[in-house]
Parts: sequence; structure tokens; C-alpha cells
Amino acid sequence: MDEMFLMNNVWIMISFVLVLLMQGGFILLEAGSTRMKNAGHIAGKTIFTVGIASLVFWAVGWGFIYGEGNAFIGLSDFFYGDLTSTDGGLMGTTSFVFQLAFAAIALTIAFGGFAERAKLSVYIIFAVAFSAFIYPVIAHWIWGGGWLSDLGKQDFAGSTVVHLTGAAAALAATIILKPRIGKFNKDGTSNDIAGHNQVYTALGVLLLWVGWFGFNGGSTLEVDGAFFGYVALTTQLAAAAGAVAAMIIVSAMTGKNDIPTMLNGALAGLVAITASTAFVAPWAAVVIGLVAGFIVHFSMVFFERSKIDDPIFALSVHGVAGVWGTLSTGFFATTELAEMNGGQAGLFYGGGFSQLGVQLISVLACGIYAFLVAFIILKVLDKALGGLRVSEEEELIGLDMSEHGSYGYPENMPEENKKSEKTGA
Amino acid sequence: MDEMFLMNNVWIMISFVLVLLMQGGFILLEAGSTRMKNAGHIAGKTIFTVGIASLVFWAVGWGFIYGEGNAFIGLSDFFYGDLTSTDGGLMGTTSFVFQLAFAAIALTIAFGGFAERAKLSVYIIFAVAFSAFIYPVIAHWIWGGGWLSDLGKQDFAGSTVVHLTGAAAALAATIILKPRIGKFNKDGTSNDIAGHNQVYTALGVLLLWVGWFGFNGGSTLEVDGAFFGYVALTTQLAAAAGAVAAMIIVSAMTGKNDIPTMLNGALAGLVAITASTAFVAPWAAVVIGLVAGFIVHFSMVFFERSKIDDPIFALSVHGVAGVWGTLSTGFFATTELAEMNGGQAGLFYGGGFSQLGVQLISVLACGIYAFLVAFIILKVLDKALGGLRVSEEEELIGLDMSEHGSYGYPENMPEENKKSEKTGA
Amino acid sequence: MDEMFLMNNVWIMISFVLVLLMQGGFILLEAGSTRMKNAGHIAGKTIFTVGIASLVFWAVGWGFIYGEGNAFIGLSDFFYGDLTSTDGGLMGTTSFVFQLAFAAIALTIAFGGFAERAKLSVYIIFAVAFSAFIYPVIAHWIWGGGWLSDLGKQDFAGSTVVHLTGAAAALAATIILKPRIGKFNKDGTSNDIAGHNQVYTALGVLLLWVGWFGFNGGSTLEVDGAFFGYVALTTQLAAAAGAVAAMIIVSAMTGKNDIPTMLNGALAGLVAITASTAFVAPWAAVVIGLVAGFIVHFSMVFFERSKIDDPIFALSVHGVAGVWGTLSTGFFATTELAEMNGGQAGLFYGGGFSQLGVQLISVLACGIYAFLVAFIILKVLDKALGGLRVSEEEELIGLDMSEHGSYGYPENMPEENKKSEKTGA
Repeated sequence: MDEMFLMNNVWIMISFVLVLLMQGGFILLEAGSTRMKNAGHIAGKTIFTVGIASLVFWAVGWGFIYGEGNAFIGLSDFFYGDLTSTDGGLMGTTSFVFQLAFAAIALTIAFGGFAERAKLSVYIIFAVAFSAFIYPVIAHWIWGGGWLSDLGKQDFAGSTVVHLTGAAAALAATIILKPRIGKFNKDGTSNDIAGHNQVYTALGVLLLWVGWFGFNGGSTLEVDGAFFGYVALTTQLAAAAGAVAAMIIVSAMTGKNDIPTMLNGALAGLVAITASTAFVAPWAAVVIGLVAGFIVHFSMVFFERSKIDDPIFALSVHGVAGVWGTLSTGFFATTELAEMNGGQAGLFYGGGFSQLGVQLISVLACGIYAFLVAFIILKVLDKALGGLRVSEEEELIGLDMSEHGSYGYPENMPEENKKSEKTGA
Repeated sequence: MDEMFLMNNVWIMISFVLVLLMQGGFILLEAGSTRMKNAGHIAGKTIFTVGIASLVFWAVGWGFIYGEGNAFIGLSDFFYGDLTSTDGGLMGTTSFVFQLAFAAIALTIAFGGFAERAKLSVYIIFAVAFSAFIYPVIAHWIWGGGWLSDLGKQDFAGSTVVHLTGAAAALAATIILKPRIGKFNKDGTSNDIAGHNQVYTALGVLLLWVGWFGFNGGSTLEVDGAFFGYVALTTQLAAAAGAVAAMIIVSAMTGKNDIPTMLNGALAGLVAITASTAFVAPWAAVVIGLVAGFIVHFSMVFFERSKIDDPIFALSVHGVAGVWGTLSTGFFATTELAEMNGGQAGLFYGGGFSQLGVQLISVLACGIYAFLVAFIILKVLDKALGGLRVSEEEELIGLDMSEHGSYGYPENMPEENKKSEKTGA
Repeated sequence: MDEMFLMNNVWIMISFVLVLLMQGGFILLEAGSTRMKNAGHIAGKTIFTVGIASLVFWAVGWGFIYGEGNAFIGLSDFFYGDLTSTDGGLMGTTSFVFQLAFAAIALTIAFGGFAERAKLSVYIIFAVAFSAFIYPVIAHWIWGGGWLSDLGKQDFAGSTVVHLTGAAAALAATIILKPRIGKFNKDGTSNDIAGHNQVYTALGVLLLWVGWFGFNGGSTLEVDGAFFGYVALTTQLAAAAGAVAAMIIVSAMTGKNDIPTMLNGALAGLVAITASTAFVAPWAAVVIGLVAGFIVHFSMVFFERSKIDDPIFALSVHGVAGVWGTLSTGFFATTELAEMNGGQAGLFYGGGFSQLGVQLISVLACGIYAFLVAFIILKVLDKALGGLRVSEEEELIGLDMSEHGSYGYPENMPEENKKSEKTGA
């Protein structure tokens, strides 16, 4: 078999593994950013929703994205099982698992908006719906030959497809679910509901950072030119700049060198560079990361003041930074790199406003679609299930106990939380 | 040097790294499934038993498996040190480290049966004995040209060699060691001794899941045909199906959406598909995973009712699911895939009962051998050491303190456990 | 494009990812080895100092190492941005990110000496200074064509460049900062300030062990001969031997099977083999690891008795074992391997004392340079910042609160530590 073809497959298989590893980053980031009484639930739900996302992607997701269809959706290749077909420079099977991992990441991002209050049944049903009807449609539009792809949309690794889609669904969820008990006071002020473990959050960010080299690097879909090296360079610089910028701005604005904000800066840099990694110069990657690090702080403040409860900062990190990243290629894409990767130069390289316009349209279209469909699904579920949210008593005692019947940390829970628990020795 | 040859080596080297990473998954899974007072011990013992397994594998393990010998055991190539030899499409050195990592996994599985009560000295001596006399013999039978290999046994990546062998040794251990204090009551009922950290367990399962793409994917031993992509597809589907099935069945049977059971479902799916990943269709992988997820729940209940204490569920996850996985290829192996991978079609594809018979014989032979030899070794140790188990007082205070002289979590232990501890500031 | 060239790039890109993953190992190792009140700080600082190291490496670090210059330092190629140049058998971009990851590891090792008492501002400024003026200079001397490279210094993957350099800076820091409150008593005795989480430490060691196959394996810089397989073999054996040796010696000397010492043994084996992995026989790797495991224990005792506070054991693990590893190639390098990798045979293989002499000179030169420059930088900072160390009150309350304004574990802190904290629900 052709050696270049095989090498492409080796690289994308490794990239798949790295993207799957990002779920470990999310387990730690989400558990660390929330409270002890919900930690087992949050960590555990990541595993079974990855399970659901995988089965739905196999059954219909891949077909909706890449099947023969129309500008809106693909409509063939359901229940994927082709042993021998190829997909560009890859085996179909390699391509399938790589794309599956992206679908599961988008779902995990969306669940950021559900944290610490949604019923388990909502997680289960929404996982199916999102994996079937939200993510694949947008992925088809941009990566599957749909209408945004025809317009010339640039989204190298999914700032829009994965991050903005997930964040828009998270926004719908957090609006419908309403804030957690104790988050906002009657006088309009808000409380910091601190996450219970910053070692988890920091390690989670590191695992996400590591996995991102599969996310962005694998999106080359081939090894030719060893272009993944360039992608890694811009990705590393943007993440680094995001962390440093967020640390500086949060210190300057609040006098407090807040660790969660700094960590969100690293993630915001990664999210932002995801669209533009293949299109921009290293110095521009630094600028994109710095800006992402600055805006993630202001975005966190904005949502807090808007009384929108965003426990895991999905809206700021994946939403706002995702939009910035998508637009940034419209500004910074160089002529040389845009030609190499089949796009158009950005505003600062003489490309005028046309690419910027396409990027803007795609952000609006995808953001609105994901938000609206998620909103409708959740409203229907709200009726069907008699509410999306656990009872006040259940929320206070924590979802570990109310949804799963045992604490994630049975030996560390304060006595008042333990009343209904039965443990052994 | 030949490029295909080098590419094989790159892929298997990566797979080795992924299989080694699975030890991190076991550290988290085992520590999370047990109590705080034993956490440092359980995590730490994994590191030094990997050390012991590595040295023993180098000294004699590789030679017992792959050396020139007879149908029962290999008898050459001890103290491996060959810089230039090749092993099939691989450098001998690459093959060596990949196989070493498998041996260490089998040992770690076996130690699941020892948890929270065996003496440290038992761990050390059993690590040597298992790595020399149990694992390599079975690996020789199936992968090293021994008698089961001659019979046509199919075990793509080690459902039998690694998982069943480890689980059979764990069974011997848990029978001889007897249940932990407080596990079973005089009236015949049992108590749930909850693990102390479900974030660890969930993250541990994710790391194991990630590493499994080296475990199964690397068992292709080459990149030709990019067949690792197909292996990854069936592996992902079985794991996903296992998690979902276990979640459903435990809710239906107990009314409690138990997180440890759901996590065990994902692992059971992975263990089951390990034998059959290269032989079955994607839909069959889903079925194999679903069945694994269902039976892991019933198996957990069965061992609990049988008064067999299985703290980390090694018997259910690696044993029962390992047997199911080994047999499943006898049912589901397709004609096309069996031909490609040098096996026979299963019962449902017109292969009749012959492959199923071989699979059954191998399960019995390997399970009995591993159980018996482990049983004998442990009985001898029991005499020699004056018991395998720490004293009742030591078990109550925890193995961190009794075996290692300090707590794994010195700042989190309740006062009653701390009497003998001396800490600084 | 040439397939061998591309395969080199795939392998080094993967190795880069593995070396970056080692930062996750350090997050866990450092947080686990210190107290709860400093855990968020320690974990979080790793992320932003990786950010700083990355930006500085891009701006000047790469240029100081690999730029055109003199025997002391390189002086071109600042603000790296070359899309198309190659560096030996690699794309420049691939080589750049791989080398960047090494620079960040050296910095993280150095910060071991700062733990639990240095001001945040010191971390930030020292990260810039070390990444610009300490690491790149030594890397230039040995890997960038500088004067030690001309002398024939052997340092395959950085026992000296990375580990000794980091440890020498850590020594300067721990001397100037002085011991933590409560570490040493007035009567000359010392207290064990136990780390708060041995599961973290054990998992951290496992992640470092895993990442080391990128650190050492990637230092082949190419796939030809699949020599990374041999490197993996010696690396695995040395780590295994180090863990076993440290476990034996600490039990024999103290009667206590101390887990942190055993874990340090594994790391010491890895650090020691880093210089010699490509030059020595497997049996010699076992010996090098065993010796490393023995000396790490005695080194820990030595620093404790010398009233030098080494919270994360950087001096023993990276310093003393780094020196031993660097010297070990002077003893054990075989004629065949030395020829293959462009070095000289060691003393035991008829190479005489010449290689050993070069190794000794390089250890002295690099150790003194790193120590002295770090010492001067920190002394200047000491004046400029009015002390390097947080106040006694801040140290007692912990750096999470004093430097960042919130605890890493807000739900687990004892009440007396919480006075100044404001939390939500």
C-alpha cells in the first residue's frame, strides 16, 4: 500500500487518540470548576455521554455530515461499516474515528452550560439530540460540502464547528435552566461559587493543551509538507500568549491573580487559534492569543453581570474566543498560507473584507442554528419531563447523591450533606 | 532502511507508550475505587510493580514467551539485549518494549484481587512469580507458537492472554485473602465499601480507554492496510455500547444510576472487544459491547452474593467480560475478516462450532492454569510469610500507614486514623 | 516530499506532545509533594510559566541556542517564523516546538527549589530570565555547536542540558530563599513536611515516565534504524531499576517503605539514563538505574542533614542523578553504540578516561554557570522586590490565598486557614 497514504493514517490515528484524551481534560476541568457534591456526577457523565455521542455518530452523525445529500445535510452512509473505502488520503475508518472524536468534544462543551443543576435524563436525551441534529448539520455546512463550504468559509480545525456550536448550545441551556442556587443575590450582586479543586483544573487545561495538537495538528488530514509542525508552532504560541495575557489583565483589573481566569486564558488562546492556525504568521498567533486572553476576562465579567450563570466558562472560552478566532483569520490570514490551504488572504494582507464577511456570516448562521435548535429541544424536554432541573433540595444535597445515589467523595463530604447516604466500613 | 518497516516501528512505539499510559488509568481506577487510608499504597505499588514486571520480563519473561522451546514454554533469549535483530516487521527492541507493557498490565489486573488487605511483601514476591511463571507461559501458548496457537486460537490483543490471566490470578488471591473487614455481615448481607474518589475512577477509565487504542491498535503489529483504523472503530463502538448498556441495566435493576457500574460497563466493552476487534463487523462490536455492559452488572451482583470480595471489580471486568470477548469471536467473526487476520469465521458466519470450541478450550486451559499456579504460589507464601494479610489493626488503620509509614493524604485523614502519624508543619 | 523526512517529522511531533505531557506529570508531582494550601498556586504556576517559557523561547531562546554566533551563544533567528526551512532531517517548525518543550521542562525543574515560599512576581521574572539567559546558553554549548560540543560532550537527551541546569538553578533558589517555616528545628533536627496527595505524586511519576519516551526517544531526531526502540528499552529498564533500588534501600536504611523515595527512584533512573540511553547496553542501563535509585535516597538524606530544603527533591532527582547519568556514559558507553551515535567508548570498554574527563568538565561548567547566573539574578531580584519570599503570615496561610486570592481546595481547608476567604454557596 502507498506509504504516504499509510503515514497519513498513522498521523490521524494518533490525532484521534489525542482528541479523545481531551475528554480527560474536560473531566478534570469540569469537576475542578464545580463543587464536591457534584464531582462524581460531572466526571461520570462525561464517560457515558461520550458513549452516546459515539453510537449516534455511528448510526447517523457521520451520514448527516459526509453522506450524499444537499447543501443543508447529508443523507447516506448511516450505520458506518465500510472496511475498505477511502476518504481522501485516509482510510474511511481512520477518518471516521477522528471525526467522531470531534463530535464528542462539541457535546462535552455544550454540557458546560448544564452543570450542577440539570437532571440526568436531560443529559441523556440531549446527548442524543445534539449528536444527531445539531453538530452534524453545522459540520456538514462547513466540512461536509454544505453551503458555507461553498461560500469559502475558513475553519481549519473547528473554532466554529466544534467550539462555537458547543457554546451556543450551552448558552441556550444556561438561559433555560437559570442560575444555580446561590449564584446571584436579590440585590443584584453575584457570588463566586468556587470550583473545588484547582489542581484538577490546571491539569485539565494541560491535558486539553496536549490534546489540541491532535485537534489542530490532525486537521491537516495528511502529513505532506509536515505542515502539522507549523500548526503546532502557532497553536503553542497562541496558548502561551492567552495564559500570559489573562494573568496580566485579571491582575490589573481586579488586583487578584486569579488562577481560573489565567487557565481560561490558555484555553481561549487555543480556541481562537483553532480556526486560524494554518493561515497566520507566528507573530499573528501571538496577537490572536493575547487578544483571546484579554477578552476571556472581560467576557467572564460580562456574563456575570448579565446574570447568566456559566459554571465552566464555556460561553467565554468556547463561545467568545471561538468567534474571535473565526474572525481573526479574516484579519490575519497571509497570502502565502491562504493559498496553500485553499482560502483567501485577510484584511491586513490585502484580501479586503470578503473573507471577513464570509467568516461573519458563518458565525451568525452557525451560532443561531445551534442556539435555536438547542433551545427548542430543551423547551420540549422541559414540558415532557416536568422541568429540566433537579429540585431545590436535590441541588443542595448535590447531584452525586440525587442522580446517582452515592457521593463522588464519600469520605470527604461534610456531615450535613450525608444524611441520606448509606456507606459501609 | 525500508520505509514500511520503519513505519511499523513508529506505530508500535506509540502503541507501547499508550499501553504504558494505561498504568496511569489503573492508578486512578484502583485508588478511586478504594478508601483514602489505602490510596498512597495502591497508587505507589503500581509504580514499583511495573518496575518489577519490567525487570523480570527482561530477565526471563520475553525468553519464556518467544524463545526457542516447546509447546509449553520458550527457553532462550533471556536477559534481552539484542540491538540489531528483527521480529517480523519490527525491530526486536520495539517488539520487546511493546510486549513488556502487556505483561505489566496483566500483573496490575491481578493485583485488583489483593486490594486493601495484602501485605506489601506479598505484592513484591507475587509480582516476580506472576511475571516469570504465569503470564509468560500463557502468552507463549497463544502468541509465542505454543499449543493453543497450533490449535488456531484467536486472541487478537489479549482478552485471554492479558485480561483473563490477570483476572484468574485475582480470583485466586481474593479467595485466599478472604473479604475485607466490614464487607460482609454475619447475617449474610453485604456492605458497599465505596471508593473514595469517583473523579479518579472516571478519569482512570478515560485513560484506559485512550490507551486501549495502543493495546488493540498496536496488536496489528504493522501499519499495512492501515488496519488499526478498523480496530479503532470497533474498539470505540464496543466501549461506548458497554457504558450505555451498563448505565441502563443498573438503573433498571436497582433504580440507582450507579457511576461505578457504568464505568465498569465501558471497561467491560473494551475488554470484550479486545479478542474480537479485528474479526467482527461494527454492528457486532456494538452487540459485543452491549452484552459486556449487561453482564458486568450481573457479574458484580453475582460475586457480591457469592461472598467474594472483588474491590476493583477485576473479576467482573477482566474475567467475565474477557471470557465473553474470547467467545464472541466464535460467534461473530466474519469470513472476510477471519481470512485477513488468519482465523476462522464464527458460528453466525457459517464457520460452525469449531472456532467456538477452540475459544472455549483456550478459556478453560488458560483460566485454570493462571488460577492454579497463582493459588499454589499464594498458598506457599501464606505459609512462608505467616499469612498474606496485614493484621486486623493494620487493615483498620490503613495500608498507607501500616506498610509505608505515612498517609497518602496526611491532611485529610480523620483524627482517629492519625494517632501514630508524625507530621511537620 | 521525501517519505523518510516526513516520518522523522511525525515521530518528533509525537515526541514533542509527549514532552509537553510531562508538564502534567510535574503539576501532579509538585502539587502532590506539597501542602494543600499551596496546591492551586503550584499547579497553576506551571501553566503560565510554560506560557512564558514558550514566548521567550520564540523571541530569543531558539536564536541563542541555534542561531549563528560564537562558542558561547547564538545570535540570530530571533522571533522564529520560518515556514519552509529545514533543520537536519526535520522541518524547522517541528524541530522548534520539540526544542521549546525541553526548555520549558528545564524551567519547571528549576521551580522545584522555589516551592511553597517564593512570591508570584519572582516566578514571573525568573521564568523570563531563565528562559533567556540560562537554559539557552547551556543548550548552545552542548547542542547548538558551542564549546562543549566541540570537546565531544555526550548528552543524548539532556541529563546535563535540561536536568542538571534546572537543578543547579533550583539549588541557588533554595539557598537564597532559605528553608520553609517548620522544616528545621532549633536543635538541628528536621521535620518531614509531608506532601498532601500521594496519588498525585504516583500518577505524576507515571506521566513523566510515559513522556520520557518522547524526551529520550525523540532525541534520536530521526526514525532511521528505528533506534528509538533501543532507547525505549534502556529507558524502561533504568526507570524500573531505579524504583526497585530506591524501595529496597529506603526500607533497609529506615525500616520504612517510603513511597516518595521509591517514586524518586523511578525518576532518578529516568534522569540518569537520559544522557546514556543511546550509548549503553541493557545490562548497563539496569546498573545505571539501580545506582540512581540508591543514590537518590542518600542524596535526599544528605540535603536534609545539610539544612537545605528541597521540597520536591529536584536537587536529588534532577541534580545528583543528572550528574551520575552524565558520568555514567563515561563508564559504560560501548564501542559499537558510541560509534553509531558519534561519541567515544567509556572506561569499561577501553575508551580510557578521555570521555569521562569531558563529561566531568561539562558537568562542572554547566552546573556552575547555571548556579551562578541563577544566584545573581535572584540576588538582584531580592533587592529589587524587597525580598523573594512571601511574609511569614502569608506562608502560613498558604500561597493559594496570599498570591492568588482563593484556595485551590476551598471546600477542604481547615477553618483556621479560611479567615480571609470569601466564598459563595
